[in-house]
Amino acid sequence: MLNNSIKVIFMLGAYNGVILDIDLTNERIEGKKLDESAAKLFVGGKGLGTYYLAKELRPKADPLGPDNIFILATGPLTGTSAPSSGRWTVVTKSPLTEIYLDSQVGGFFGAYLKHAGYDLVLIKGKANSPVYIYIDKEHVEIVDASDLWGKGCFETERILKEKHGKDTSVGSIGPAGERMVKFATITFDRGRQTGRGGTGAVWGSKNLKAIVVKSAKAEIEYAYPEKFREAVKKAVKKINLHPFIPIRKLYGTPIWVDRVSSAGLLPTRNFQNGSFENVDKICATTMRLEIVERDMACFGCPVPCWKYSKVKDGKYAGTEVIGPEYETIALMGSNCGISSIEAIAYANALADDLGLDTISTGVVIAWAMECYEKGIIRKEDMGNIELTFGNEEAWIEMIKKIAYREEIGDILAEGVWRASKKIGKGSENFAPHVKGMEIPGYDPRGSFGMALAYATSDRGACHQRAWTVKMETYGMLGARFSYENRAKIVKEIQDERAVCFSLVLCDFMPLDPLDFVEMLNAATGFNCTIDEYLKVGERIWNLARIFSIREKGISRKDDYLPPRFYEEILPSTGYHIDKNEFNRMLDEYYKLRGWDENGIPTKEKLKELQLDEFMSFI
Amino acid sequence: MLNNSIKVIFMLGAYNGVILDIDLTNERIEGKKLDESAAKLFVGGKGLGTYYLAKELRPKADPLGPDNIFILATGPLTGTSAPSSGRWTVVTKSPLTEIYLDSQVGGFFGAYLKHAGYDLVLIKGKANSPVYIYIDKEHVEIVDASDLWGKGCFETERILKEKHGKDTSVGSIGPAGERMVKFATITFDRGRQTGRGGTGAVWGSKNLKAIVVKSAKAEIEYAYPEKFREAVKKAVKKINLHPFIPIRKLYGTPIWVDRVSSAGLLPTRNFQNGSFENVDKICATTMRLEIVERDMACFGCPVPCWKYSKVKDGKYAGTEVIGPEYETIALMGSNCGISSIEAIAYANALADDLGLDTISTGVVIAWAMECYEKGIIRKEDMGNIELTFGNEEAWIEMIKKIAYREEIGDILAEGVWRASKKIGKGSENFAPHVKGMEIPGYDPRGSFGMALAYATSDRGACHQRAWTVKMETYGMLGARFSYENRAKIVKEIQDERAVCFSLVLCDFMPLDPLDFVEMLNAATGFNCTIDEYLKVGERIWNLARIFSIREKGISRKDDYLPPRFYEEILPSTGYHIDKNEFNRMLDEYYKLRGWDENGIPTKEKLKELQLDEFMSFI
Repeated sequence: MLNNSIKVIFMLGAYNGVILDIDLTNERIEGKKLDESAAKLFVGGKGLGTYYLAKELRPKADPLGPDNIFILATGPLTGTSAPSSGRWTVVTKSPLTEIYLDSQVGGFFGAYLKHAGYDLVLIKGKANSPVYIYIDKEHVEIVDASDLWGKGCFETERILKEKHGKDTSVGSIGPAGERMVKFATITFDRGRQTGRGGTGAVWGSKNLKAIVVKSAKAEIEYAYPEKFREAVKKAVKKINLHPFIPIRKLYGTPIWVDRVSSAGLLPTRNFQNGSFENVDKICATTMRLEIVERDMACFGCPVPCWKYSKVKDGKYAGTEVIGPEYETIALMGSNCGISSIEAIAYANALADDLGLDTISTGVVIAWAMECYEKGIIRKEDMGNIELTFGNEEAWIEMIKKIAYREEIGDILAEGVWRASKKIGKGSENFAPHVKGMEIPGYDPRGSFGMALAYATSDRGACHQRAWTVKMETYGMLGARFSYENRAKIVKEIQDERAVCFSLVLCDFMPLDPLDFVEMLNAATGFNCTIDEYLKVGERIWNLARIFSIREKGISRKDDYLPPRFYEEILPSTGYHIDKNEFNRMLDEYYKLRGWDENGIPTKEKLKELQLDEFMSFI
Repeated sequence: MLNNSIKVIFMLGAYNGVILDIDLTNERIEGKKLDESAAKLFVGGKGLGTYYLAKELRPKADPLGPDNIFILATGPLTGTSAPSSGRWTVVTKSPLTEIYLDSQVGGFFGAYLKHAGYDLVLIKGKANSPVYIYIDKEHVEIVDASDLWGKGCFETERILKEKHGKDTSVGSIGPAGERMVKFATITFDRGRQTGRGGTGAVWGSKNLKAIVVKSAKAEIEYAYPEKFREAVKKAVKKINLHPFIPIRKLYGTPIWVDRVSSAGLLPTRNFQNGSFENVDKICATTMRLEIVERDMACFGCPVPCWKYSKVKDGKYAGTEVIGPEYETIALMGSNCGISSIEAIAYANALADDLGLDTISTGVVIAWAMECYEKGIIRKEDMGNIELTFGNEEAWIEMIKKIAYREEIGDILAEGVWRASKKIGKGSENFAPHVKGMEIPGYDPRGSFGMALAYATSDRGACHQRAWTVKMETYGMLGARFSYENRAKIVKEIQDERAVCFSLVLCDFMPLDPLDFVEMLNAATGFNCTIDEYLKVGERIWNLARIFSIREKGISRKDDYLPPRFYEEILPSTGYHIDKNEFNRMLDEYYKLRGWDENGIPTKEKLKELQLDEFMSFI
């Protein structure tokens, strides 16, 4: 137990200046001072998380071994009055991809952590038996969690809130995390997840069932309080004037379901098509009319985009879930041939409770469905489940089998990359992943920008690092099906997002880097220019890259999509990814990044980015 | 004046059996018996309207001369308890295209006409001075309308309702119709128009300002009342269970705005693109949130898809309009580069009041904008208007200039086909029309089915005769960008819609031909099979075709799109229409229709369709 959390003298505004360092193996809890120069170079959230992971993780550590480090990171704007300041980050080495992983998450946990007095939490080692960590402003404690082990996230959260009060935020793993399913999540605030890459499996490997943070009064000292207030006011005004905001408020992310299906890139039946014939049954309007009960928002957000849903009748009656979000509808829905928003809501709740990433779960099940329909996996190997596209019962059964690693679920629990290597028979060609991370809700044959974004994303196929879908389908980049200029755009968005994820603010805010930098400077006193601000993003991106190079020898060979996307034409767009064009785009991207033709950052680039201390990684 | 409308002995259920025959030249008003065998062959609405036009119009009559006949036609299901029975039809020879024209319209006028005792009204001749026609169950009268001439449709309707009571339905023309603008409309029930092809100009040419019909108790005798009730009940149940119906109720037709933009075929800046970067400002959600006040429905419709809108603030504050519909948003909005739903609502109200088709108006203005930006029309020729894409003031000014035929408005009032012939300098290549009818809200380079549908539509470019957009963008026809099978689908839908428009029921009902035929048989006692039912559609389609052959020598040469669609790639889809593929599709279509390679129905086909009496047309 650590009593009376430490106070440090920290010169920058809006930080606590304190890192909480927890070693579960020997139950050591320490507070240590955040590195000020690192804060200037990496800001917070994703940036500082990446910095400490790169600095402290033993090379080639087993992601599911006690050596892996799990980092929870707030940023200077987390928990402030900046709009969407409920966002925060986790960073670790991924058991799914065996490379760099970060995950951005909303809700309340990050703000509470910040208000409790910590900027970052580093979790190391492995507890002997199940534990949870309790954090409040006065003390931090590792508590026995043997009685919680085996329980779902919802029940775990309920019990811990009963014990520690409603004014807490809880993150917990379910049966999937306990069994180290490679794409297990941690469920925070009942409905928010660190979704991708197996964060829940890392907790499971450490015997860490949950973390509870108690809410406290925010005592954030800003460098220029008045300037900060002004900058926030300006940003909020801008948000409220943006034409997309009322649409987002009403529908949240699912607004994209029918748009993306119309645009021909909604994953359908394991990426065999990009438009779903039953899209009306799973689109945002239907969801809103049929199941949404109310709107909810993350801490400090003027745009309540969470949808609290409840199924009123039919066989899923009584289901309550925060969601489903676009990605869940796309991957668990159309990609599995499922045509019922109620069924998707049920599966979503199930996944949240079991602690499974709905994207990876949807992809791996849809892949298994295709394998089954093609005779690659037989019924007897499926545990006698008729896993055809659209079969709701089989699909729900399979979600459970994955979480509990039962029968074929044990193979699917390894993710589509490992499962397809194991099953073989050509199934690797249509296993949708990059670097072992399942491809999310946009078929790259409907967005060439996304093809490059997936291929080069730091954590494997990810839609958040550079989301070009809107720009391309709104006609903002000229011809939609063009490779022109995509490298530049993807590179720029990746950098910009990397630093935004370090503030941490939300993806969905219609703000410019100028707005962000204004708030950052006023809060911290950084006084950085827009170029310096974007340089932070580039620095983080490069550090993540060389981390993965050190860990797994990542290089050009890994920056590709699976064969299906180059070889098969998507019926809904009439395009495949042209391999030559893709290679040209990749060359251009490396060049813009200052990386060599093999995708390795040059020493000059690392020097320019002040990453000297990590030079040995390459 | 005709007192005590005639009674006839008519053997078929659900008809009045009476045609009202009005000659404005000598103020003759007659009731005559509807031809029973024609009713069996052509059902009603579009079908019977086409039959009587073909039968009674003098060949090659000037569409704006006294010889043209204007037909208002209800069908056996109009004004019944069948869902969406508020639909009815007008048929005439079009002054815009100089060929066959019909127009489907909703509201209350058709039902009132039916309840007043008439199935069809034939209007011939030309009044010496402005008149309106008053119709009720007891009498029909031609009334002086000199004091109404010059007034807008809204004012005209208000005055006539004040005079004749609120329980009337009024159709009237505005300044555009009076000036015989080639795409002038008639506005019925304030917000419904016989939109396309210049119906309002025909009234204007006849000095006919308005028609008023008084509501009366429906006294429809069904052949099998119990069966009809059952069939209606079944149809209503089916409608209520369909997943798209709640979406349509909430948003009406504008639900397609963002979907079609995403799909890359929303006309943008005179069909230079198919995705609009400001689509969020004009999409259905924004419209609903910003301006929609309440939902309204046509007579007898369970799906209130009209949106009554009111602009609350800004420079268009106070605007009230029924709409805007999808087509208005597409052609007046994105196609003119206009990014404000409030501005579109204002222009919509203006067009409804002046009596202008928003589709043709939007197309002709957008075409003029492109001419202006390309220097083909100079500012001084524009009446010093800066007619650039997105210039709201210039765009509104031009709407008025067209309605009043002022300056360049006089040229644009002739429609894009004639205007481009007059202006020349290559502007014909990007003048979007087929057979003189402006192309509506779906770029054919995003829907190859629509390419054929536009090219072969009986009244020139029309989206309602065979709307393949949903099937293609929902992935229901296999590969989206394929010419495969489109000829068969377009032909089948054209026939099916032609008979549905003869019932008359609405386009938007998710019902099958089986549902329609069940209601039709129960109402009329026809006892026709599904094949016979569809054959009616084919008969109508062929009759319209040979009518246009007689009138204007229509043939294969006219069944093409303008050069832009074959020559220029649409940036949002990456496709143009391949001329060879198009020709193959057209060959296949003619073959399926039993027409020769020049697009002329064979004598055998006409015989098979019992069109012997019209054999001389070819």
